[in-house]
Amino acid sequence: MDNALDYATSHTDAFIEQMEDLLRIPSISTDSAYKDDVRRAAQWLADHLEGIGLQHAELVETGGHPIVLAEHVVDESRPTVLIYGHYDVQPPDPLELWNSPPFEPTRKNNTLYARGACDDKGQLLMPVKAAEAYLQGEGDLPVNLKFVIEGEEESGSKHLVPFIEQYQDRLDADVVLICDTAMFDEGVPSITYGLRGMAYVEVHLTGPNRDLHSGTYGGAVENPANALARLIAGLHDDQHRITIPDFYENVRPLTDEERQTFRELPFDEEAWMRSIGVDAVRTEEGYSLLEAITARPTCDVNGVWSGYIGEGAKTVLPAKASAKISMRLVPDQEPDEIAEKARRYFEAHVPPTMTLEFRDLHGGYPVLVDTEHPAMQAAAEAMQGVYGKEPFFTREGGSIPVVADFKRILGLDSLLMGFGLNSDAIHSPNEHFGLDRFEEGIRSIIRLWDIYAQQSA
Amino acid sequence: MDNALDYATSHTDAFIEQMEDLLRIPSISTDSAYKDDVRRAAQWLADHLEGIGLQHAELVETGGHPIVLAEHVVDESRPTVLIYGHYDVQPPDPLELWNSPPFEPTRKNNTLYARGACDDKGQLLMPVKAAEAYLQGEGDLPVNLKFVIEGEEESGSKHLVPFIEQYQDRLDADVVLICDTAMFDEGVPSITYGLRGMAYVEVHLTGPNRDLHSGTYGGAVENPANALARLIAGLHDDQHRITIPDFYENVRPLTDEERQTFRELPFDEEAWMRSIGVDAVRTEEGYSLLEAITARPTCDVNGVWSGYIGEGAKTVLPAKASAKISMRLVPDQEPDEIAEKARRYFEAHVPPTMTLEFRDLHGGYPVLVDTEHPAMQAAAEAMQGVYGKEPFFTREGGSIPVVADFKRILGLDSLLMGFGLNSDAIHSPNEHFGLDRFEEGIRSIIRLWDIYAQQSA
Repeated sequence: MDNALDYATSHTDAFIEQMEDLLRIPSISTDSAYKDDVRRAAQWLADHLEGIGLQHAELVETGGHPIVLAEHVVDESRPTVLIYGHYDVQPPDPLELWNSPPFEPTRKNNTLYARGACDDKGQLLMPVKAAEAYLQGEGDLPVNLKFVIEGEEESGSKHLVPFIEQYQDRLDADVVLICDTAMFDEGVPSITYGLRGMAYVEVHLTGPNRDLHSGTYGGAVENPANALARLIAGLHDDQHRITIPDFYENVRPLTDEERQTFRELPFDEEAWMRSIGVDAVRTEEGYSLLEAITARPTCDVNGVWSGYIGEGAKTVLPAKASAKISMRLVPDQEPDEIAEKARRYFEAHVPPTMTLEFRDLHGGYPVLVDTEHPAMQAAAEAMQGVYGKEPFFTREGGSIPVVADFKRILGLDSLLMGFGLNSDAIHSPNEHFGLDRFEEGIRSIIRLWDIYAQQSA
Repeated sequence: MDNALDYATSHTDAFIEQMEDLLRIPSISTDSAYKDDVRRAAQWLADHLEGIGLQHAELVETGGHPIVLAEHVVDESRPTVLIYGHYDVQPPDPLELWNSPPFEPTRKNNTLYARGACDDKGQLLMPVKAAEAYLQGEGDLPVNLKFVIEGEEESGSKHLVPFIEQYQDRLDADVVLICDTAMFDEGVPSITYGLRGMAYVEVHLTGPNRDLHSGTYGGAVENPANALARLIAGLHDDQHRITIPDFYENVRPLTDEERQTFRELPFDEEAWMRSIGVDAVRTEEGYSLLEAITARPTCDVNGVWSGYIGEGAKTVLPAKASAKISMRLVPDQEPDEIAEKARRYFEAHVPPTMTLEFRDLHGGYPVLVDTEHPAMQAAAEAMQGVYGKEPFFTREGGSIPVVADFKRILGLDSLLMGFGLNSDAIHSPNEHFGLDRFEEGIRSIIRLWDIYAQQSA
């Protein structure tokens, strides 16, 4: 391992230059105008993976953008790590807010500014460069590696699940490593062991057969917008608990140990509130802010619309009112079951004067990885080696659907070892990635594979 | 009067042809492309009013479309009737739903189809033709007449109030006659003595300083869309009464006599519900459907919007939620006072995690004309002469702001003698006006002026 670490140290500049090469390719997956660029990024990666000494890398064609698949088998008896990442990026708009062009990587104060610098080109190159450090510095890898790098993460990952299903055998592994999350804070290394799931639904209430004049009909025709407001208002009680019957039925309670960790995390509530411009928060009764945003389920309106929404006054009594509502889920809630419970809630409360259309738009399972998992323990030890302190095991409030997919299809747990920061402006103008963290990530992964291989020996 | 009635009978065809001439002019006030046509309609009317023998007619320039002002003074000691109407029309869209071109008047089954046939060109020509019948059939009028015919009714009447204020002296009269409403039903003559007023407000709730990721922030950042739903839901109680404190304070209770009339009106609730596609209604506890839509105040959402309202799922926790809300008012509620009470309601309930912006968009006073007013009694007698039965005194749920303006500025009550039907499709494709009703209207007005003059003699 020491040679690999030395190699990484002595090749830092080259690594960064290569990252810049990849960042120059505007691989915006959601915009078909960039289709060729997306493929160019995939090809760059496949070429690069073989270039650093991996046995095999290829582009797998899908109905959309290709998936980069690479393999390197040292010894069948060694553990196999499946690395997942994505080489596509978000559109850079609004361009005028960027201080330097999004696809001309720019270094400033040891930070690299570019679209994709953190999400996920910079982070996905960390295991690539760790592999290079072993292959070039040590002559071989301590573990077997597989890479699955998709090009549609920012546009729905439509072809990923079919790919995983089709390539199950070749994707056989012991654990998944994903470098696509943030650490808890600068200098606070962390490993994510929990993600929330989601049930996303849409409801439409329809009253009269057309928009009516509110003067001629108001007072007797029940207003779908008023009625929908009632249904939405009824989703929470005074303790800000969700009132959908049996909503909490399968929620696994937080353990004392988990709650202790939440208390120990160096979290500045005031700074957090300042960063989003609020003076106060509203959490479910009995839970801290951090618990509420990562380890408790939610029910939020994501969008609502009805009637006249232009300038000025129009006296319309709307025929219809609609809302998009999503529930973030925690283990062991099931998305389909929760959507069904929500459906029953709305059906039970729809006024007799109107009809309800309820659509279950999509769902995703919540994730909890056992922190005693050997890979988790190895990762913790590896990060301690780099940072000089034990990482926290933390939960994130968002969802990474692929984690549940890997579990469901391949039976694999995922190790979410992220080196981004929440302040890295991913999906926003001036996305950036600290080059210190890039190096720390590579070193952490080098250590991880060594420890994980020894554990399994 | 008999000669006037005879003249009207013998000139019916000519009257209808003249109506068709006016209907051919596409005087769409809201669309500047039709600016010249709007003026052409005004000029047609001014020329026509002098052509039938009125002493004076002119176009008064405003900042927008001109107002037609005409006068005919028979004798200062006679009562003066101020006639208000509008020569502009709604846009005809969607054109593809018209069975005949909107500006090519088409007769079918003694009904005239054209944009403006009922609202208001057809109706405003009824007093014009009644005047002609007197001037040409009798040699003179029994009352003094003034005409104020505006060209901006369908686009906000922006210049009408300044005009009334500026021309107060020349508009001096005893009563206003407006033919721009509907009769209760076919064969059910009615005179409108009540109109609802309005307070129209807009509320904006703002939480965080930008739209947030619902996974990262959901659970602690209070959602403005959920919160706004709560505020809207709270506007009504279980009896569907409005909960804004003191909202009903100045509501004049319905008299036993009024409620008796409501019960006597031949109103087919089932047919009414069928026409708008609802199976049931929801009225304020203790009030009938008809009372609820015409004589009780309301609080309706006219529009609401927040977050993501496009296709599919976007997991945004919106920064802001907005609603347009209007309250229909009944005497003696005051629009400013009601808007202020609504403001206090929202201010009292805005969650401490967010800020409220409240805008009072516009208001209009409710109207109740004393049914004992001499002009009201004369109108009732006139209609009985034409229809062979007493008209009902009815209330309408909508607002006609000019009625309150005439009262406020000139101190004049308005006589709302309409001959439209709610089924005339005003503002919709295939607007039409029954030619029987056109004739009945002219005859009713001829009788009205005679009776009114005699009463005052």
